[in-house]
Amino acid sequence: MTTDLAPLPPEFDRPWEEITEALETGDSQRLLAVLEELSAEDTRRAISRLSPEQHQLILSRLDPEDAAELLESLPEAQAVELLEEMSPEAAADIVENLPDNIGADLLQEMDEADSEAVLAELDDVDEADHLRELASYQWDSAGGLMTEAFAAFPVTHTVGMVLQELSENAEDYSDLDVQYVYAVGQSGDLLGVLRLRDLVLTPRHRNIDTIMIPNPASVQASDDLESLVEIFDERDYLGLPVLNNAGIIVGVIPRESVMEAAADHLTEDYLHSSGIVGGEELRSMPLMQRSFRRLSWLAPNILLNLVAASVIAMYEDTIQAVIALAVFLPIVSDMSGCSGNQAVAVSIRELTLGLIRPSEYLRIIWKEGLLGIINGFVLGVILGSIAGLWKDNLWLGLVIGGALWFNTVLSVLLGGLVPLLLKRFKIDPALASGPILTTCTDMCGFFLVLNLASAVLSRLA
Amino acid sequence: MTTDLAPLPPEFDRPWEEITEALETGDSQRLLAVLEELSAEDTRRAISRLSPEQHQLILSRLDPEDAAELLESLPEAQAVELLEEMSPEAAADIVENLPDNIGADLLQEMDEADSEAVLAELDDVDEADHLRELASYQWDSAGGLMTEAFAAFPVTHTVGMVLQELSENAEDYSDLDVQYVYAVGQSGDLLGVLRLRDLVLTPRHRNIDTIMIPNPASVQASDDLESLVEIFDERDYLGLPVLNNAGIIVGVIPRESVMEAAADHLTEDYLHSSGIVGGEELRSMPLMQRSFRRLSWLAPNILLNLVAASVIAMYEDTIQAVIALAVFLPIVSDMSGCSGNQAVAVSIRELTLGLIRPSEYLRIIWKEGLLGIINGFVLGVILGSIAGLWKDNLWLGLVIGGALWFNTVLSVLLGGLVPLLLKRFKIDPALASGPILTTCTDMCGFFLVLNLASAVLSRLA
Repeated sequence: MTTDLAPLPPEFDRPWEEITEALETGDSQRLLAVLEELSAEDTRRAISRLSPEQHQLILSRLDPEDAAELLESLPEAQAVELLEEMSPEAAADIVENLPDNIGADLLQEMDEADSEAVLAELDDVDEADHLRELASYQWDSAGGLMTEAFAAFPVTHTVGMVLQELSENAEDYSDLDVQYVYAVGQSGDLLGVLRLRDLVLTPRHRNIDTIMIPNPASVQASDDLESLVEIFDERDYLGLPVLNNAGIIVGVIPRESVMEAAADHLTEDYLHSSGIVGGEELRSMPLMQRSFRRLSWLAPNILLNLVAASVIAMYEDTIQAVIALAVFLPIVSDMSGCSGNQAVAVSIRELTLGLIRPSEYLRIIWKEGLLGIINGFVLGVILGSIAGLWKDNLWLGLVIGGALWFNTVLSVLLGGLVPLLLKRFKIDPALASGPILTTCTDMCGFFLVLNLASAVLSRLA
Repeated sequence: MTTDLAPLPPEFDRPWEEITEALETGDSQRLLAVLEELSAEDTRRAISRLSPEQHQLILSRLDPEDAAELLESLPEAQAVELLEEMSPEAAADIVENLPDNIGADLLQEMDEADSEAVLAELDDVDEADHLRELASYQWDSAGGLMTEAFAAFPVTHTVGMVLQELSENAEDYSDLDVQYVYAVGQSGDLLGVLRLRDLVLTPRHRNIDTIMIPNPASVQASDDLESLVEIFDERDYLGLPVLNNAGIIVGVIPRESVMEAAADHLTEDYLHSSGIVGGEELRSMPLMQRSFRRLSWLAPNILLNLVAASVIAMYEDTIQAVIALAVFLPIVSDMSGCSGNQAVAVSIRELTLGLIRPSEYLRIIWKEGLLGIINGFVLGVILGSIAGLWKDNLWLGLVIGGALWFNTVLSVLLGGLVPLLLKRFKIDPALASGPILTTCTDMCGFFLVLNLASAVLSRLA
């Protein structure tokens, strides 16, 4: 059977060439047609292949509405990139045509100076103030995630009045998934919630306050993502009203937005733990920006590495006597890092799932300590045997194996504990756990290998 | 203003003690009351603190319906853990009371022997076959993610008949978010879709085929997550019908399920890249299982490390002559790993966003190559200067700095390319990129440092 979705737009091998051609003809209609023909993925790929000059050209050829639509279809990092390349005037024209919450998200991601320049160019000062306010919410708070499109009616309305207003303004409500309708008091304070279903099934003359659910669940605009996830986790709400400090309903937060934000957080964690910091990197971004952002993570790391390696420098005589140690130092360092990172990942995961509280150190020490003793023993036996057999020296095997054993115990303990400690001090565990862990375990690993070796030097040399 | 949501159940410091007490009294009502009083997070924490014996006790005290509800509220890994601890008979009683798609998900995550044992204990053979079929879908395919609860009516029905059947069976439909109603032919083949809104606003006597959207968008049960994300990304569907090979509608996939699965994938990627393989680890799992799973990643890694370090063994004479080299080998190895991992993260991200295709090597080589030259130079100058100044030997600085420079270029090239290659060969990039990258860059790093040093040995010693 055929469906009208199945034939997705054909994929182009080099979709940017289609766009470039359309740009060269100077025909806006053709450009628009090409963009509509491309799938979302091809559009993103094409945009990432075109030059900043071409981006400008595309956006200037489209009317601001179409340009806004194009921006909406791009990943946020890419949309921000495009806006930053533009003049503030041109960017303002587009921002005016974006839904407020999306415009605010993009402005928040831009450099502060850039976003202020765009806001200053908005024709409508009230709109600028409104966007500034929206952008002031953390993107992952209830205020940052909410949509301002919702249907609220005075609590004195009848069912018939509500249904009539809904159908008369059907246009306005077509974009929002009207699952719930809110009943508000004179000042806009939230008094009740009505399910659309109940509205439809109730005689038209009845007052909505007779069928509304009074004192409905709601969240505060300042609520953070963690508490939102907890609330939506607890019950199957499709969406919840968002209140400001005065109890006035200012928006609605759909379940989907909370789930998407949670996924975005995860992406951020993953990127942070891989050393992508200071904002998401796409390869279409300017080289120097990419280089600088990566170095901002690498440069402190090289210093931490030096601190750790300074332990080796203190034992040059030992290495001089037993050159084989130089072979095993990087292995002990790398393996301890691997073991510790596993413990970090499990701790971050358990924190996310709420299986552990940042204060529960003893549980980690117990659970990781036992595991470290077993895994350290296995790894120590493997590496120690190889070391001992290679140089035909039992003592070398004992030194290397023993050091790896002890250092594995230490690594998993540290790896398990560091995320809890960081969380407690409100530092992003994904960002900082790796370098702290590596530095400590490297130092201890080097120290253990070289100190043990020094102690039995006569047996090794 | 007060809301009835605000007072979430109070948090208990040690919620498992409440449960233990309730278990000791032997009073099932009290146990149920305690479980209902606990928030979802406290329940999870409590379960992870109780022993397998206590889990058995709890589940046997609850009737299967309540036990099923408890399982539904837990993270999947935890629910699977509980089921695996139980006897197949007891597990089957609970599975019978779970929604089919959740039961199938859990069975899929269990060891094959365990899940077959549970299925064999199901009273209803048809139900067992049905679950077996559901569990045969990849969890992240349309068939694995769909819900089988949907409302479909013969295309010959009138609007009035549909509305009447909906309201008569309101109970059955209360769990599903009826946004759409489907019109099907005699054999169950999907012919059209109707929005609930349109149904309500249409005269009751009209036939539904006059207001349905014919040939609606749909997906195949075998469609994978990537194509689902693409389709839901392309348009704002709240849900799509899922068809089997014969074009019969077998379920509905809500947008939310697709987004949640995408987030789960991300979690999996993160865990894999941290060396948590063979299934998610929670610290409540048996020690030997946790230990074995972690070692299954560490043990191959130690061998790869040995391969890399064997390069050092070939240059023992060089190190003997210039002991300082032993200090810098681990630093070069670690820094190259860091640089390479940044490139891996950006490649995985760009693959996810569809900004790059697995075949586009040249773009990576160009974009990472330039960046590697810059970052390698900066890092090389930093580390080389320190090495040179420390030993007051310009040549040592040149050797260390030069090696790090070249090795950084190599690392970012490899880091950028490896995920594309793995993707092309259908290997999970998050799982395998790290070890491959580290082994290669370690080998090259050690080789560069020691080979350069050997070449200018007379200047260094």
